[in-house]
Amino acid sequence: MQITLPNYSITFGALPNISHKGKVLIITNPKIAGLHLQFLLSKIQANEVYCLSLQDGETYKNMQSIELILESAFNHRLDRNSLMIAFGGGVIGDIVGFASGIFMRGIDFIQIPTTLLAQVDSSVGGKTGINNQFGKNLVGLFHQPKAVYIDTHFLKTLPKREFNAGIAEIIKMAICFDKDFFTSLKTTNWEDSKNLLECIYKVVSIKAQVVREDETEKGIRAALNYGHTFGHIIEAQSGYGHYLHGEAVSIGIVMANTLALRLNLITQQQYQEILQILKQNNLPTTYKIKDITTFYQAFFLDKKSINNKLKFVLPKGIGDFIFKEDTSKDLLMQILKEFQE
Amino acid sequence: MQITLPNYSITFGALPNISHKGKVLIITNPKIAGLHLQFLLSKIQANEVYCLSLQDGETYKNMQSIELILESAFNHRLDRNSLMIAFGGGVIGDIVGFASGIFMRGIDFIQIPTTLLAQVDSSVGGKTGINNQFGKNLVGLFHQPKAVYIDTHFLKTLPKREFNAGIAEIIKMAICFDKDFFTSLKTTNWEDSKNLLECIYKVVSIKAQVVREDETEKGIRAALNYGHTFGHIIEAQSGYGHYLHGEAVSIGIVMANTLALRLNLITQQQYQEILQILKQNNLPTTYKIKDITTFYQAFFLDKKSINNKLKFVLPKGIGDFIFKEDTSKDLLMQILKEFQE
Repeated sequence: MQITLPNYSITFGALPNISHKGKVLIITNPKIAGLHLQFLLSKIQANEVYCLSLQDGETYKNMQSIELILESAFNHRLDRNSLMIAFGGGVIGDIVGFASGIFMRGIDFIQIPTTLLAQVDSSVGGKTGINNQFGKNLVGLFHQPKAVYIDTHFLKTLPKREFNAGIAEIIKMAICFDKDFFTSLKTTNWEDSKNLLECIYKVVSIKAQVVREDETEKGIRAALNYGHTFGHIIEAQSGYGHYLHGEAVSIGIVMANTLALRLNLITQQQYQEILQILKQNNLPTTYKIKDITTFYQAFFLDKKSINNKLKFVLPKGIGDFIFKEDTSKDLLMQILKEFQE
Repeated sequence: MQITLPNYSITFGALPNISHKGKVLIITNPKIAGLHLQFLLSKIQANEVYCLSLQDGETYKNMQSIELILESAFNHRLDRNSLMIAFGGGVIGDIVGFASGIFMRGIDFIQIPTTLLAQVDSSVGGKTGINNQFGKNLVGLFHQPKAVYIDTHFLKTLPKREFNAGIAEIIKMAICFDKDFFTSLKTTNWEDSKNLLECIYKVVSIKAQVVREDETEKGIRAALNYGHTFGHIIEAQSGYGHYLHGEAVSIGIVMANTLALRLNLITQQQYQEILQILKQNNLPTTYKIKDITTFYQAFFLDKKSINNKLKFVLPKGIGDFIFKEDTSKDLLMQILKEFQE
């Protein structure tokens, strides 16, 4: 199975052989290296292959990791014809996309995502970036991979909690874009590898369509941030690493839905239906905000906030969404109060 | 006068008013701020205007300066609709281009170059980047400015040494692309502002044509690196800041010409003619290499070196050039020996 984007393809199924005329630098983390590096190496044919293992986790998604990748690339004398391979979850994918985008003003990279979240979301679409003290993904660039390989074999070693965090992004896509898909998720058997692969394929198809229409997020692509405007703040305020990204998105979905419910964009029943499916997949749905004023101010650091105007992605029933740009401070503070500690 | 590139224009003459619906962050250095910031501010109409002054010089063209710009941008709550203005020489232009390219995955920036070198070369074409311990401009990206304003008024306060360094890039362009232009440079009166502006316009026209054909340097654009392959190593080995960039390029031209002469690409007379015009403009033309093996190895860090194959831009007579990819180590070491300490 394959999905084609303007400049590259996303291939589903067993990892194929990767042949490259030039040097290859694989960037991974200690856990994935231990479990799967030998397998990956057996698939690569290249002049020289190097491997860099970085500390895992959102806290390491920073400029220091970028500098480590660049240093390794220079030490191994990579050139403009070299290839980087991101072999890991979303963090590895985002930092390798960024580092390969600025090494000698940009070289090719390949995404081989090893988490459900990275397979359904972050490995596709060319968004790269790092976090800083001001928030998530605030520094980075659009750099499309040369190829994405999605092999569910890697998910067999994924801890259940991380697997569930990936389901949050799947649910997000269904709510915004496809009601039938959302309904089917209620009975999806995640243990069934055929069912799982179909589900990943479905989500990536939706995402690819969105990215095709709007690669650099001037319009519709911003819909993919449903749940993220709240979620990013939760991640920053609770300290990166406390919640997995997908878990913060799950809470963010509930917060966005609280606003959507108040604005009569969804019914109480739809609100409950979404809450139910998140819970069913052991995703967190509650959060205690310590200081709602600080939380409110953090909205303005979001990349979607332009000229101090906030922009929320909200569900319109299930299977559709709207961009809401005129939410009053008053209303937002009321919503945040519902989550106050 | 104006030159149009696919996504922006280069405007020559008195700086026009700059109006922007959003926040503006000017990045400059203390000297330019002292001399010209009030003038620039009088030309800007925007919601909010902020200014960041960075230490001047090649030694500050590093990741720390990028982080300072990003920090300032976040502190002032810039968003995707904001604008950065690079107000200074090539260093300011290159780091602002880079920082604006990765802030929130890329926002607009304007180049207002205040040195001759930046006006004729670095402000046009979208190359951005920083230096690191491995060499010059090795980290960066292609990020085209939204506009370039070339106003020779700023050159009146430029020290003579820096002015001459700019002439080196003008001479470089003439040697590679235009024999008549090269001949005219022998009698150019740099004090005459009409003569000066015509000369800048001529060089930028040539560069714009090259960039139009090959924005991301897959082919002909690499010709602009004539003198730079040697020059970058000289800058790195002598410590950034010892030579001005244009001065290192001047020496680099002489070194490249020594190789070109040996390969019968230029005559002894042409070699002397070029040497003469560099000297006439008080540019350095000699250099003592401490260790030729180290110098030789540094070639392989050049961005133009692919798969360990060196690539030199060499003049073919005056007004034309070739890419030379099969230069033997033996020959190169002989050339370097001529510059040995």
